[in-house]
Amino acid sequence: MRTIYWQDNIVKMIDQRLLPAQFVIAELHTVAEVVQSIQQMYVRGAPAIGATAALGMALAARQSLASDRDGLLHDLRQAKQELDAARPTAVNLAWATTRILDVLNQAPATLDTGDLRALALDKAQELLQEDIEINRCMGRHGATVIPDGAHLMHHCNTGSLATVDFGTALGVVYACQEQGKNVHVWVNETRPRLQGARLTAWELMRAEVPMHLVVDNAAGSLMRSGQVDVVVFGADRVAANGDVVNKIGTYNIAVLAQAHGIPVYCMAPTSTVDLSKATGDDIPIEERAAAEITHIEDRAVAPAGVPVFNPAFDITPHRYLTGIVTEHGVCYPPFTRSLHSAKAGSRDTP
Amino acid sequence: MRTIYWQDNIVKMIDQRLLPAQFVIAELHTVAEVVQSIQQMYVRGAPAIGATAALGMALAARQSLASDRDGLLHDLRQAKQELDAARPTAVNLAWATTRILDVLNQAPATLDTGDLRALALDKAQELLQEDIEINRCMGRHGATVIPDGAHLMHHCNTGSLATVDFGTALGVVYACQEQGKNVHVWVNETRPRLQGARLTAWELMRAEVPMHLVVDNAAGSLMRSGQVDVVVFGADRVAANGDVVNKIGTYNIAVLAQAHGIPVYCMAPTSTVDLSKATGDDIPIEERAAAEITHIEDRAVAPAGVPVFNPAFDITPHRYLTGIVTEHGVCYPPFTRSLHSAKAGSRDTP
Repeated sequence: MRTIYWQDNIVKMIDQRLLPAQFVIAELHTVAEVVQSIQQMYVRGAPAIGATAALGMALAARQSLASDRDGLLHDLRQAKQELDAARPTAVNLAWATTRILDVLNQAPATLDTGDLRALALDKAQELLQEDIEINRCMGRHGATVIPDGAHLMHHCNTGSLATVDFGTALGVVYACQEQGKNVHVWVNETRPRLQGARLTAWELMRAEVPMHLVVDNAAGSLMRSGQVDVVVFGADRVAANGDVVNKIGTYNIAVLAQAHGIPVYCMAPTSTVDLSKATGDDIPIEERAAAEITHIEDRAVAPAGVPVFNPAFDITPHRYLTGIVTEHGVCYPPFTRSLHSAKAGSRDTP
Repeated sequence: MRTIYWQDNIVKMIDQRLLPAQFVIAELHTVAEVVQSIQQMYVRGAPAIGATAALGMALAARQSLASDRDGLLHDLRQAKQELDAARPTAVNLAWATTRILDVLNQAPATLDTGDLRALALDKAQELLQEDIEINRCMGRHGATVIPDGAHLMHHCNTGSLATVDFGTALGVVYACQEQGKNVHVWVNETRPRLQGARLTAWELMRAEVPMHLVVDNAAGSLMRSGQVDVVVFGADRVAANGDVVNKIGTYNIAVLAQAHGIPVYCMAPTSTVDLSKATGDDIPIEERAAAEITHIEDRAVAPAGVPVFNPAFDITPHRYLTGIVTEHGVCYPPFTRSLHSAKAGSRDTP
């Protein structure tokens, strides 16, 4: 199962808004449609929206009417702006579009516009393939910190659907499974958008990983009764000091875990690490529509006109983290040093 | 607005399952229907289900076909059993039914069955009236610990709808409002049944109390950014040592509050304090149906057949509580002593 791919000269993706009830492949024919797919959350998860933006750049190159290199690059800079602005918190959008644009900027002058269009697509495809390899690396590194028989608590969705394939924190679960380790996952439903209930539960059931769906409110109770051994989640952006910006509620479970002496691991590829942000408080937190809370699909679950505050992410300060698992290994405190090393070890940096 | 009342010789109540979309008064003609109204949560909240059970006893007395005192008391013991078993966690059910039955057991031998039926109704009505007075007392005591301009975080519903009228923790909010204090409430939506979104938001909007609805996952983030001054909630049962059993997620916000140095108050009438339970771990925790998590009304939000764990309540150990507000004043640690005194000061004990 690929979450996002290029086929018939357009971008295709699973429309995650419809899961688990329906499995529908959305077809995106323009950059505007790709931007919309990110904003409206057909696709979500930092690695997956990075990959989507890369294919968006390939689509922009293909559809540009420019007859020369300058015109093509102009159109691509325009597309990059639109894609980068689709959502503010995950850094992977700008990381991916910058990578494609840099390759084209640095391409030999001998390449014509046709060559450049092909190069954009090649590099986007390469980025998607790399995402899977990176996730498999993270999975192997992450599995070393998960004991056999562990009960994990997992927030949001970090699986195949949050990436091109395999996943970050759920990738670690899949790696444990491949190694024959027994693991059981407490799946936080993850209000407001219920990515845990809708996506993670669906993925884990397909993969036959033992799990129970719980409300986010059950986290403390499960920990207090000794039923959680490790807390795992992904990241939308990681600051230079190791502060993690991730789905709202991540901070709740990190504080609860620390109060119960339970280790906490964030799984994030180095593409999600942003050394330009000193701390989590420097990272913009997206606020989303009230209807995400007041309505479930078209059903109102709150009074009309109720005032709502709906931040999509929260900041977990680095002191709550036992480790951050990247494709280059497990980073431990002090994260300012370990993340810098991991980032330097990555294939390329933004 | 009365949540529960006696009219036309039957029990009437707001069907809270339909709020905020519809305001419907349910009419309960038999003890079996009263039991069903508690189990299916037409009515919820420890004081409200205690009051409902008291009226259920009056209904049982009225409908008993017994022609003598012994027969009537036999029928009432039977009704008490059914009512007490409706839900396991709140102690107010047994507290209320015991109170009615004790009065009838101790009634002068000169009373005939007609007198006893009238006495059962009088005593049930008295219990309902007392509930409102108790809540107003709690409101006044509780308001003393809420500073002017405070931002409160509130879990579940503890307002008029959780009692006969006025409420426990929300009663404190209403008392602050009556005193001219400015308060603002962060309303936790309270998954799985969304009593915060459906009931508390509805009550506070009607009362014109400033508020914002938030997902339970936002609690830590709001506290970390300094936007919460006091955490308040009610209780389904309080153990002798001050451990509080309350709606699932209460423990999460209590731990989070302590980590941020924010005071935590539980508001509970002494009828909710059970001195026969040494600690919270001695109190049974109800598990409810998976559908409360997997479905919103008739809409599935999780894959069919997903394994679910759905405890309705959690235990907040007393060390997380700044104080417990009763109708006799604010109890402070050591709670074993202060709760005992409050309980002794109550009009009657179970």
